Amino acid sequence: MNNVHGHIALVGAGPGDPDLLTVRAARLIAEADVVVHDALVGDGVLALARADAELIDVGKRPGHGVAQDLINVLLAQLARDGKRVVRLKGGDPFVFGRGGEEAVALAQEGIACEVVPGITSAVAAPAAAGIPVTYRGLSASVTIVTGHRSHGEDPVNWAALAQAGGTIVVLMGVAQRGEIAAALLAGGMSPGTPVAAIHRATTDGQDIVRCPLVELAAAEVRSPATMVIGPVAALDVTALAQVLKNSTSST
Amino acid sequence: MNNVHGHIALVGAGPGDPDLLTVRAARLIAEADVVVHDALVGDGVLALARADAELIDVGKRPGHGVAQDLINVLLAQLARDGKRVVRLKGGDPFVFGRGGEEAVALAQEGIACEVVPGITSAVAAPAAAGIPVTYRGLSASVTIVTGHRSHGEDPVNWAALAQAGGTIVVLMGVAQRGEIAAALLAGGMSPGTPVAAIHRATTDGQDIVRCPLVELAAAEVRSPATMVIGPVAALDVTALAQVLKNSTSST
Repeated sequence: MNNVHGHIALVGAGPGDPDLLTVRAARLIAEADVVVHDALVGDGVLALARADAELIDVGKRPGHGVAQDLINVLLAQLARDGKRVVRLKGGDPFVFGRGGEEAVALAQEGIACEVVPGITSAVAAPAAAGIPVTYRGLSASVTIVTGHRSHGEDPVNWAALAQAGGTIVVLMGVAQRGEIAAALLAGGMSPGTPVAAIHRATTDGQDIVRCPLVELAAAEVRSPATMVIGPVAALDVTALAQVLKNSTSST
Repeated sequence: MNNVHGHIALVGAGPGDPDLLTVRAARLIAEADVVVHDALVGDGVLALARADAELIDVGKRPGHGVAQDLINVLLAQLARDGKRVVRLKGGDPFVFGRGGEEAVALAQEGIACEVVPGITSAVAAPAAAGIPVTYRGLSASVTIVTGHRSHGEDPVNWAALAQAGGTIVVLMGVAQRGEIAAALLAGGMSPGTPVAAIHRATTDGQDIVRCPLVELAAAEVRSPATMVIGPVAALDVTALAQVLKNSTSST
């Protein structure tokens, strides 16, 4: 346990665009012997690894992917082998990335790790759609939740979130969007509350669907997507200059 | 209005450490003619600007700083002058950074801007203290709020947040920590709920104070700090390997 010479970094890969990696993440990826990555990490990011680096996809897809305890064993073994390991996760490792659990599992094996935050899709995906998650007079808080969870565990108090009055951002919740909308409506949120769903934000495949909350269940939203719920979801501040220019020139 | 040749980017500077800038942010700063920055942006980040770049500090400190509408006028003028402008904000421009308002003000002048997200301190400051803001079984959501707000505007429903049961991260709330703790306790949050306050996260001056919620008002917390409230605030997953190693060798 005291002869560990490897280096393990739990690294956030950000929302997709390699330009949105942190400087430190880009450097660690370029230096890594092994990159152990999730399914959501984009090809552009993985392309920064050395040509001779080993890339291991442990991505969790519904019904597939590598079990969490096997990932933990793999990381510990790589560290003992003296490898420079980057454990690369979409977004940020500590925002629904199970980075905390992996750090604890490594610690139990006597292995320390470095944590490098990444830009969470909960903020970057809305931004890519021109949506500020907070805006004076519209939203005084932003709550990040995940739609994907184990049976019966960590129930989200949607009624309380509906009452809190701020922006809600749902990660990994496309399949559960009907239940989530129903729970928020039952909790008192207005049926007309704007929703925006951003599919593959910051990549070439980016696609945005906007609808009122009451229509979310029936809306065609492709997975993976980040869903923004609240008055800010009606905004697109980056397109506004062009919109205003057009309206000026047409009058 | 149609002869704007400048380029304005609203850029997140991240939590402090220049290594936690995004690749794109670092490049834009290095290329900028003018960097218009807030007080919270660190010297290490500003040092990346060209030696001949103009640095303008419009930082808002209590009772000081440049009024928001003057900042908007300044940015529009710089863009019309054809400058490459980086408007640099601590953390992320859309998470309590007023980036949305600045984008709207520029749009009203016919000026489009690019938005480059940054690592919000709401996630990176806890991470620097070894605290994952979400953790299976401990926290199924994270809500980001600010303690600093204009009189009577955007009231936060602290009782609803206390009921929601997830992690709460408070930015810019050191001076208001007594009122915030009282509101959460009145809303039903347990007095023993762990709190961690991280001062100047990811910089050389980083300092961490931990206490139960009921003691937050009296705790010595220096501003600026990011405050984490919830069961995860008791964790330090990055120090755990050493703690476990020591406990093993002493038995």
